[in-house]
Amino acid sequence: MKRAFFATAIFVLFVTGASTAMAGARTGEPIQPIEPAKVTNAAKVELGKMLFLDPRLSVSGFISCNSCHNLATGGVDNLPSSIGHKWQLGPINSPTVLNSSYNVAQFWDGRAKDLQDQAGGPIENPAEMGSTHALAVDVLQSIPGYVDEFKKVYGSEKITIENVTDAIAVFEETLVTPNSRFDKWLAGDDKAITKTELEGYELFKARGCTTCHMGAAVGAGLFQKMGLVKAYETDNKALGRYDVTKQDADKMVFKVPTLRNIELTYPYFHDGSQWNLKDVVTIMADIQLGIPVTEAEADKIVAFLLTLTGEMPEITFPLLPPSTPSTPRPKRM
Amino acid sequence: MKRAFFATAIFVLFVTGASTAMAGARTGEPIQPIEPAKVTNAAKVELGKMLFLDPRLSVSGFISCNSCHNLATGGVDNLPSSIGHKWQLGPINSPTVLNSSYNVAQFWDGRAKDLQDQAGGPIENPAEMGSTHALAVDVLQSIPGYVDEFKKVYGSEKITIENVTDAIAVFEETLVTPNSRFDKWLAGDDKAITKTELEGYELFKARGCTTCHMGAAVGAGLFQKMGLVKAYETDNKALGRYDVTKQDADKMVFKVPTLRNIELTYPYFHDGSQWNLKDVVTIMADIQLGIPVTEAEADKIVAFLLTLTGEMPEITFPLLPPSTPSTPRPKRM
Repeated sequence: MKRAFFATAIFVLFVTGASTAMAGARTGEPIQPIEPAKVTNAAKVELGKMLFLDPRLSVSGFISCNSCHNLATGGVDNLPSSIGHKWQLGPINSPTVLNSSYNVAQFWDGRAKDLQDQAGGPIENPAEMGSTHALAVDVLQSIPGYVDEFKKVYGSEKITIENVTDAIAVFEETLVTPNSRFDKWLAGDDKAITKTELEGYELFKARGCTTCHMGAAVGAGLFQKMGLVKAYETDNKALGRYDVTKQDADKMVFKVPTLRNIELTYPYFHDGSQWNLKDVVTIMADIQLGIPVTEAEADKIVAFLLTLTGEMPEITFPLLPPSTPSTPRPKRM
Repeated sequence: MKRAFFATAIFVLFVTGASTAMAGARTGEPIQPIEPAKVTNAAKVELGKMLFLDPRLSVSGFISCNSCHNLATGGVDNLPSSIGHKWQLGPINSPTVLNSSYNVAQFWDGRAKDLQDQAGGPIENPAEMGSTHALAVDVLQSIPGYVDEFKKVYGSEKITIENVTDAIAVFEETLVTPNSRFDKWLAGDDKAITKTELEGYELFKARGCTTCHMGAAVGAGLFQKMGLVKAYETDNKALGRYDVTKQDADKMVFKVPTLRNIELTYPYFHDGSQWNLKDVVTIMADIQLGIPVTEAEADKIVAFLLTLTGEMPEITFPLLPPSTPSTPRPKRM
């Protein structure tokens, strides 16, 4: 993480020096800058990174958190829905792990209250990693390299699923993407975005997109009905918050996704049905706001959205500690 | 790669300074030190890394080179055989990509003459990545970020499979693991390995293991029959070089695998049937050399083998350039 911090420091110096293009930080906007990660426990973050990348948390030994939340591709898998254990296709599009600490709750239906709560889900989902918490812990406990790491971070050689998911969550909290061009503009750098991109942002606000897509994550802070003014048609069976609350009013109510790095996180919507960001803007204007956008307007809004791609976290491959002859063997079938 | 070079430089200074424990480089040994990678075209290496990690080279958009040659786990997947497209199980254990430039030829049966020749295979293997060279190139050609990279590296905006596999091969050539404890001992540092490990090495030589497992890669330099003095029993159908040459003498003749990082590259043998290195040593002594080893001898040889784990290449996740609406869509089923 050190290099990322240096980069940030250099950026701050540069911005401070480049006063000619600066108008002062824009504090009154509905979108706020995203903050760089603050790492207070580097050993825990490193352990969480190892676990995030370790396919041995799956019963097959083939699927890791990173399989569906790939750190090389915007924290997603760029598939309509994920491929899981024995090539089962998931029921819903995988949301990005980037900036996921900003989510009001985790999963599209918000059924997990935080990242730690979320991290335990896929491990024991038969259609995802296909393992159990007990087996995942047994695997880790059999690996001396992990026992040492858990001892160092948690003070005990006994590994628990709570500590496994805590470490993964703390690692995920570092996966933020600050310093997008839009953030630089928010910081007062007029030249960070073009006239067209700025017009796109003004349209984005004027049409009411910021009602839901606001704050530091440009979304993620609330739930909203998909198809607010016109029903959304899809073959996908997910009913959003209703699946958690069983309240009729929650049918088709989903967590509003972050729009940060939206350039990278296609295909779009909870059903992963849309591959073209311009189509997405057009559909959302129609079914959420009831005010159609022209082609030219959609182009400008897309231009603005592409300014939200931030600096990716610098993640170096760990060397995962090897299994031992006593480690439970992966079961591929 | 820079940090790795600094580390090497510091190591050299340290060794030079620590003369008290030094006996001078051991040049007469059957095993030679492995050399750090020399990067002459950093842009090509970076492009190759992107391609190596890009699941879009597979038809599903889910499987990359790294899926089976995972850089977090010794360049292998730690499975008896790999999981491929639609969860098909491969016919043979995936060899490590680490130090693979030392291989006399690629694949267990040596059917590819070099790394570039190898890299094209899995892309179009229906049981592995399930794509075609034409489709893989079409996907890359539709992505402006890749077109820019190929232009920079190869001087042309037209992407070819030859350039794709060349870049992957040049990246793979950098995946070497120098400075194992055994290499330090070879360099003259008497204290780099223990008395037991040294006894294991002496046994390894005395019993004739170095007949095949020699040179910088401790293997990889020649083909040899599996079951030289006693037939090897396996359900695996691979017949090694015979599958390439159709010569009876080549039945069960396989490339001798490197023993570098053997601690990480379980399960062992071309059929991936063995998970315990001590069992492997015992079996090899029996069927290759015809001289059984005692438990104590096998323990010492294993202790020596564990000194062959080197410094892993430092690989940072790239940001893969996003697809566009014109990119051929992944086909999961």
